[in-house]
Amino acid sequence: MTTHDDSERRAWAYLASVAEPPAASVIRLVAAIGPVDAAAAIRERSVPPGHAGVIEVTEARHMITTVDDDLAACDKMGARLLTPDDAEWPAWSLSALDRASTAARGGAPLALWVRGRAPLDVLGDTAVALVGSRAATSYGEYVAGQFASGLAAQGRAVVSGGAYGIDGAAHRGSLAAGGVTAAVLACGIDRTYPSGHARLLEEIGARGLVVSEYPPGTTAAKHRFLTRNRLVAALSGATVVVEAGRRSGATNTAAWATRLGRPLGAVPGSITSATSVGTHAMIADGQATLVADVDAVATLVTPDGEDPRGPAPTRSTDGLPRDQFRVIDAIPAHDGVSIDEIAFSSGLQVDAVRRALAGLDVAGLVDEDRGLWRLRR
Amino acid sequence: MTTHDDSERRAWAYLASVAEPPAASVIRLVAAIGPVDAAAAIRERSVPPGHAGVIEVTEARHMITTVDDDLAACDKMGARLLTPDDAEWPAWSLSALDRASTAARGGAPLALWVRGRAPLDVLGDTAVALVGSRAATSYGEYVAGQFASGLAAQGRAVVSGGAYGIDGAAHRGSLAAGGVTAAVLACGIDRTYPSGHARLLEEIGARGLVVSEYPPGTTAAKHRFLTRNRLVAALSGATVVVEAGRRSGATNTAAWATRLGRPLGAVPGSITSATSVGTHAMIADGQATLVADVDAVATLVTPDGEDPRGPAPTRSTDGLPRDQFRVIDAIPAHDGVSIDEIAFSSGLQVDAVRRALAGLDVAGLVDEDRGLWRLRR
Repeated sequence: MTTHDDSERRAWAYLASVAEPPAASVIRLVAAIGPVDAAAAIRERSVPPGHAGVIEVTEARHMITTVDDDLAACDKMGARLLTPDDAEWPAWSLSALDRASTAARGGAPLALWVRGRAPLDVLGDTAVALVGSRAATSYGEYVAGQFASGLAAQGRAVVSGGAYGIDGAAHRGSLAAGGVTAAVLACGIDRTYPSGHARLLEEIGARGLVVSEYPPGTTAAKHRFLTRNRLVAALSGATVVVEAGRRSGATNTAAWATRLGRPLGAVPGSITSATSVGTHAMIADGQATLVADVDAVATLVTPDGEDPRGPAPTRSTDGLPRDQFRVIDAIPAHDGVSIDEIAFSSGLQVDAVRRALAGLDVAGLVDEDRGLWRLRR
Repeated sequence: MTTHDDSERRAWAYLASVAEPPAASVIRLVAAIGPVDAAAAIRERSVPPGHAGVIEVTEARHMITTVDDDLAACDKMGARLLTPDDAEWPAWSLSALDRASTAARGGAPLALWVRGRAPLDVLGDTAVALVGSRAATSYGEYVAGQFASGLAAQGRAVVSGGAYGIDGAAHRGSLAAGGVTAAVLACGIDRTYPSGHARLLEEIGARGLVVSEYPPGTTAAKHRFLTRNRLVAALSGATVVVEAGRRSGATNTAAWATRLGRPLGAVPGSITSATSVGTHAMIADGQATLVADVDAVATLVTPDGEDPRGPAPTRSTDGLPRDQFRVIDAIPAHDGVSIDEIAFSSGLQVDAVRRALAGLDVAGLVDEDRGLWRLRR
């Protein structure tokens, strides 16, 4: 945290711990009254009308006293707690989760614990998720490594889940080629899970990014892998499944990519290999595009041969604090709208809209004329 | 030949030899004046007006005296010369070539030399062509063999080209499971090409079908492989490419299947294998469906789970002599037409139309009412 005072930082750390992610009701409360007041309301069990759901999801943890320890652990690792208010928050990529999801499935995360020097928004549009079986074959690990190195050579970040098998091979391939790779974990960023990847995760933390929505100390659990998978897909411009058996967890990440409208690729293999049954099914069903080389993977994320590092038109709003992003999203392309209308469309309180508009005005993104706000050309 | 007298048989054998297939102009001449007159006209260099092209394509060979030798060789092998007049001629399957082709690319064959006891029309709708690289990998040969055995167990014929690699493995797999397999050759059915397949071709001839449009003695030549490929695709309800490099001949057979509107499948493999580059490209481009097991192959030919041996609605005209088939094709579904109109649409002479209608009337397929012919329900 670089931009918030200590009370805000402590409030965010409390909010990130007080409910099991994804916690849509807590996120809504923060949007409505801000993090400091939200944290106080939860602790004091007195949330505003319309936010009763928060009481329920924070029942078990509202008394936690681990916030200072979590932040100390974070500082000790040289890590940071990122929130939608931070400039490096990949708002565009993550907001796709809100557009695609019901609350039950999980929207955007409330906050992210991040270890590593690269800004988190190196992920997103041009990054590629390489995922697949833990019980990978040597073929699958070879392909994952080759693809990751090739993507790194093109300046693309490689996102994966830090697991054995395909994930590990993808991270290693990216590191070997000097690329940025991000491991999105289903446990705290201070845990070494799986234990055999202690050194790999250390290296990713030093040269890439280790990311989690779970506070330090959180242990991996089955449901957290599924919740985590949505972030792997959301933080990547495209997802490629390298190897997957019939019931691989990678098919869940693939489903998220599809749900988010992101391109999905799958690598073919021998039809006699159990770990290619899943990828073949995705291709045969038309869910995934067959990708047989790294150029085909790159084409998934930049179909028209765009420069992967060039600014895409949608990215002018990337890196905006979440409220500003929601406000921008609520202003029509060719029309002026009042603050009340923006509050209605964005779901933000009028005060929050006013604050966000002030920021956007300073940033040169909006104009006001007789009470109507427009996007600036 | 079972249904023609000797002069007709000798005429067909002459016509099958006198021009390099595909010889559309010769086929048109036969349709116009019958095989005996067509053979005489070509030999005497006096074709009817409108058929001048025939003189040109028969220039080099019109003096041939090999007809008796060809027929003797055929008899000695226990083989037969099939023409569109034979009941086992797969008229529906082969006529797709006329509908899809320009003359330059090759329409239906004039006649076929066939060795083997099965009737030729066991090929067609439910048969599957398994094709691929001569320089196949052990993986490709294994898959071809497994698919062929599985198809044989379902009562489906397997069509291929008799070559080394995928073709040979497909034929062997079918034979091993007691199935009918057809080798469509780019040389005479008496040639053992490739030489290492002498015993395999012998076995196919004894238990399956060896098929060629080239007269006995014809040697294999590069252009004949391309011409032959269209027959492999046309004689099969679907084509599956098991392995193919970037410039494999199998991609030509695949293109024919597509042109004929027949389903095309392709088998995935390791992306590090040069012999899967072609199949992966077909799948990635959407030209072929990925097929990873024999059930997926079967679904290509009977998508709705039909019984592969049940009669398809289109097959009531299968096995018809070619002229009758062309006449049926020229009668609209819900309307009566005159003999002149049929002659115009079918491209047949009025006399040929009259003869064909007589046969169709006897077979119960058409009705006449005041000079207008209709399809019988």
